[in-house]
Amino acid sequence: MFTVIGERINTTLKKVKSATENRDEAYIKNDVITQEKSGATYIDVNAGARIGHEEEDMRWLLSVVQSATTLPLCLDSPDPAILEMAYSLVERPPMINSISLEKDRFEPMMQFLKGKNCRIIALCMDDSGMPKSVDDIFCRAKALVEELEKIGFKRNDIFIDPLIQPMSVDAANGTMVFKAVEKIMTELQGVHTTGGLSNISYGLPQRKVINRIFLAMLMAKGFDSAILDPLDSAIMAVLKTADMLQGEDAFCMNYLKAVRAGSIVA
Amino acid sequence: MFTVIGERINTTLKKVKSATENRDEAYIKNDVITQEKSGATYIDVNAGARIGHEEEDMRWLLSVVQSATTLPLCLDSPDPAILEMAYSLVERPPMINSISLEKDRFEPMMQFLKGKNCRIIALCMDDSGMPKSVDDIFCRAKALVEELEKIGFKRNDIFIDPLIQPMSVDAANGTMVFKAVEKIMTELQGVHTTGGLSNISYGLPQRKVINRIFLAMLMAKGFDSAILDPLDSAIMAVLKTADMLQGEDAFCMNYLKAVRAGSIVA
Repeated sequence: MFTVIGERINTTLKKVKSATENRDEAYIKNDVITQEKSGATYIDVNAGARIGHEEEDMRWLLSVVQSATTLPLCLDSPDPAILEMAYSLVERPPMINSISLEKDRFEPMMQFLKGKNCRIIALCMDDSGMPKSVDDIFCRAKALVEELEKIGFKRNDIFIDPLIQPMSVDAANGTMVFKAVEKIMTELQGVHTTGGLSNISYGLPQRKVINRIFLAMLMAKGFDSAILDPLDSAIMAVLKTADMLQGEDAFCMNYLKAVRAGSIVA
Repeated sequence: MFTVIGERINTTLKKVKSATENRDEAYIKNDVITQEKSGATYIDVNAGARIGHEEEDMRWLLSVVQSATTLPLCLDSPDPAILEMAYSLVERPPMINSISLEKDRFEPMMQFLKGKNCRIIALCMDDSGMPKSVDDIFCRAKALVEELEKIGFKRNDIFIDPLIQPMSVDAANGTMVFKAVEKIMTELQGVHTTGGLSNISYGLPQRKVINRIFLAMLMAKGFDSAILDPLDSAIMAVLKTADMLQGEDAFCMNYLKAVRAGSIVA
């Protein structure tokens, strides 16, 4: 099953920032409920935008979000201390967003993760920067999986993010990710792949068209999770249609249900 | 480069049938010119619908179509005698639609093809009927390639049609074709894969959505040709976007051109 990480509860978004500042519970609850109805399977919570307020904002958001849904959360912070606090407040095993191979980040995150009951997004980033080849992505993915397995993580709990880079920067950025996802899903069997789709279309017009077709093609390579806006009904329609075409929708029931609900339209 | 076989000059279509019956040159020419402008790289010509008139209709259509375009044609008939006549009238090497492993069809078609300068659509069909597994498709593709190579065909001139079957009949029909296309493009390197997309959505609602997402996913597997209606701007938009994402559109020029022309819209 495809894992949809709903990205909307993020204080870098203006409306969420102001709702958080004003402690507007109704706004946050309504957003979470709508994400769940639209097909989110995790709710990402990022409280990083109000400098100096991340801890109190995260605490407040976690309480409001969990009063609105029983979906598991995706705790999104670069700071292990914030994650530690957030982890102590979640009602069910969360996903952690994220670990990478960057030195000043890797060790503290590994310390935090040891013994925790959670899933983890692992970014294919190291101190040399963004990956430049299929091998870069794959070697970093492999290193992350090996390290996480050492501290007891199961592959089913690891979500590799190959780091999607814009087509406008290099015309090979699409195929690099296609090949890397295929290699990861074949050679590191059991892990998942995830990521933010919209980077692919940065700098190009009609970005949503690109993001959608990119998702369908990635899914054909085995990509089985994404960090996205579940209220974007066109991308959710692609997801449901691709799921159906991959035989993961018995008797096309979810597809047919979505058509009847008016959410799949030519 | 993706090979688009424009399917519109087919007398089973009511308007084409009546234009052919009435020798309406303007209608046919206009249709062909529009297909070319929309991105067709071959024009399929099928004159089979008016029983007893195939030879004269094909002769007339070939003359009219070739007065409207310099694109190569795809000669579409089950009858080697019609193909022989048509082959003698084309101004540039055509594609032939089609050969299969069905006994009463295979030998006459091989006789016809021997020594001809053409490309060929090879259907993964034999006397036991439609393929039922990835292996069925692959073994038939391999047999067809071997036979065609024996009489001098190059792989670059062979377009394997895996025979797309409806999701509504079996939820595994999508993955069967995905896996078969990937295997063919990997293990029979140099050949092309093609087919009619719309069978996949037979019996389901919002068929065009399914056809589009299916095309994007197939292209991710290596599928590099399709028999389709180039005037369906949404499917052509998928094609151009997927081509761009696969790095086959330097500086995204074709994509940007299509956006400026208004043919790629979110």
